[in-house]
Amino acid sequence: MTSASPLRDLRIRGDRLCQSLLELAQIGATPKGGVCRLALTDLDKQGRLWVVEKARRLGLEITTDQIGNTFMRRPGKNAQLPPVMTGSHIDTQPTGGKYDGNYGVLAGLEVIETLIDHGIETEAPIEVVFWTNEEGSRFTPVMMGSGVFAGAVTLEHAYEATDTAGKKVKEELQRIGFLGEQTPGDHACGAYFEAHIEQGPVLENQDKVIGVVPAVMGLRWFDCIVQGFEAHAGPTPMDIRVDALQNSLNIMQKVVAIANEFKPHGRGTVGMVQAFPNSRNVIPGRVQFSIDIRHPDSAILEKMTALLRDFIAQVSSEKSIAIDLKEVSYFPPCNFDANCVNTIRQAAIDLGYSQMDVVSGAGHDAIYINRLAPTGMIFIPCKDGVSHNEIEDAKSEHLEAGANVLLHSMLAFAKPVTN
Amino acid sequence: MTSASPLRDLRIRGDRLCQSLLELAQIGATPKGGVCRLALTDLDKQGRLWVVEKARRLGLEITTDQIGNTFMRRPGKNAQLPPVMTGSHIDTQPTGGKYDGNYGVLAGLEVIETLIDHGIETEAPIEVVFWTNEEGSRFTPVMMGSGVFAGAVTLEHAYEATDTAGKKVKEELQRIGFLGEQTPGDHACGAYFEAHIEQGPVLENQDKVIGVVPAVMGLRWFDCIVQGFEAHAGPTPMDIRVDALQNSLNIMQKVVAIANEFKPHGRGTVGMVQAFPNSRNVIPGRVQFSIDIRHPDSAILEKMTALLRDFIAQVSSEKSIAIDLKEVSYFPPCNFDANCVNTIRQAAIDLGYSQMDVVSGAGHDAIYINRLAPTGMIFIPCKDGVSHNEIEDAKSEHLEAGANVLLHSMLAFAKPVTN
Repeated sequence: MTSASPLRDLRIRGDRLCQSLLELAQIGATPKGGVCRLALTDLDKQGRLWVVEKARRLGLEITTDQIGNTFMRRPGKNAQLPPVMTGSHIDTQPTGGKYDGNYGVLAGLEVIETLIDHGIETEAPIEVVFWTNEEGSRFTPVMMGSGVFAGAVTLEHAYEATDTAGKKVKEELQRIGFLGEQTPGDHACGAYFEAHIEQGPVLENQDKVIGVVPAVMGLRWFDCIVQGFEAHAGPTPMDIRVDALQNSLNIMQKVVAIANEFKPHGRGTVGMVQAFPNSRNVIPGRVQFSIDIRHPDSAILEKMTALLRDFIAQVSSEKSIAIDLKEVSYFPPCNFDANCVNTIRQAAIDLGYSQMDVVSGAGHDAIYINRLAPTGMIFIPCKDGVSHNEIEDAKSEHLEAGANVLLHSMLAFAKPVTN
Repeated sequence: MTSASPLRDLRIRGDRLCQSLLELAQIGATPKGGVCRLALTDLDKQGRLWVVEKARRLGLEITTDQIGNTFMRRPGKNAQLPPVMTGSHIDTQPTGGKYDGNYGVLAGLEVIETLIDHGIETEAPIEVVFWTNEEGSRFTPVMMGSGVFAGAVTLEHAYEATDTAGKKVKEELQRIGFLGEQTPGDHACGAYFEAHIEQGPVLENQDKVIGVVPAVMGLRWFDCIVQGFEAHAGPTPMDIRVDALQNSLNIMQKVVAIANEFKPHGRGTVGMVQAFPNSRNVIPGRVQFSIDIRHPDSAILEKMTALLRDFIAQVSSEKSIAIDLKEVSYFPPCNFDANCVNTIRQAAIDLGYSQMDVVSGAGHDAIYINRLAPTGMIFIPCKDGVSHNEIEDAKSEHLEAGANVLLHSMLAFAKPVTN
């Protein structure tokens, strides 16, 4: 978009987008104003059918692949060009909100509807996709659909994933009518943009409307298991105890200290902890806790991991106790395509929105698609930075602004047909 | 017992006592060599009937009170004298051992059998009792039977206690045939002795055979609830987090630090901990953990509590977070009767056993009976100080020694009839 562009004044309809978000949020609505629409449940089916019906009304071509990813295409003038894609997911956390994922999908459909309203054709096709099971709440791993699409997760592995009731992904896809025939990844992609709420407080704190996302933090997940000796809390003198919980506390503190050494992007969190036997009058004989460390720079993430391992080895040696550190997951840092990132930044500037770079701390489907095609992400603020929570909220003017940036970024890649 | 006593050479039969312990341990035996005989279950019924049958064979008079405490009496020459009592409990932890409680009951019966073997009559009656639900694993509160007997717990309160399946104490007493008619506490007691494994490592570490117990530590139980703000572990910068777990760690460390300030008897333990929502990639929004502090000196226990409260107030103020400290239980320190304690010590010395004073860190039925009558406790070593565990173990020579000390201590109070 240059100032000479005839489309410089083109805008999506914010009222229509917000209305769509509220309608979709009725499916699986919770009493506290959130949404519970776990992947491949009856509610997910209803949500998917609602989105597909909307796409049908817009005249889009709809295809579904073998992992249930669903693509809604508006043809371009040049059918040889790969589509410029956008999208996200519509599954939610058990106590999720209205915007996480859903915003990216419905903003994409709003972009297409805007183009239709104004009779604007594009050279390249434009596609909106919803990826299967991004949240990972019901089935592991997270970002399953985009992972399979990118070849990072095999279809067989995804099919074997079971929920707590023993249901498998493939049978659930079949049951809800979203087991497609298209081979995942057998699908060209010219570029991919994903609009998403920030899920953090940076934009709100800095009073900016648009977050331009140059990168996503790398993430390492560990389970740390500290051994102690179970004994009665009364008769056992302090000096001879081997208290697995007390010996865990320094490590838990170190996780945060390491993150603080690498500000502003370092992250360190202990979110889960379990003591055994977890009895009030028994000195814990074993403690297991999770460690989540993140950084957008690969070398620093390695350094953080090394500091953690060194510290644990030191505690283990000083206290003569067994400590096991098991790696559970690893997502390397992800740098988005410079051209996509610059296009997003320029669109925000041209549209007159305040903007800043925000490194994403959370994972998104875009991480996987970035392996296949030039990719970029657009963040908008969410209230108090809260997400994965029924009170998740976003302002209508921000929802509108993000979709306008998406519109102009996609147009920059798909190229409006000039008659 | 003086050196001139004709009974100075009297000894219980260690082989018979050990055989009894092994037989009773068959009821509810676990594959790992422990015992699971929860209060008022079918297995508890079997165990009770086994003990009662043994008492019947010894010709003892058996009565049961309204909370199921069961008394097995050998009459004295003087029926006006209150009985000299001994006993403990036969219910166990879910993964309990063979000796905790059971030893005190069977050592008492062995004392009576020894007197019968040798035709020794006593002036005062001698009674062995097993108290209902000492462990508290199935029904709260712990030490229920002795608590009701001593008037510290009302019968109504005890009857209303329910297990996780919703069964109530009274209906379970009735079901297993141990809902007696005797009013609890309507039962004279001249003195009470309880033999027990130490459940701690002090005797073993000091290589002593007999622990003379002058006192039982006072105990205060708290639940500490630290509030934070739940947020996504990725996008939330370290500086703006309100991490309930990290803010709990200093308090957990302080619990131990306070205990260490008051060595050797101070105790401080965090045994239970729960983070909410306990999710790997969510900063904990709330953490609840238990605090167990103990000391045999009332004033020091108060001081420890005050230090804890001050520290929590300081953390709460510095971090601007809500921290709630709820008291769950309080048992004041208990000092046993000097005459009973000295009698036990002298018996051990006279019998040639190495001995030392050991303050009990664990609660026992004797704490409640101490409110009614002169009371003392005899400890013997247990392997590695381990109890409340299937691997709980004790040496036959120690089991025998403790019962001999019990025999001579009881004789000192019940007085052998001299013809």
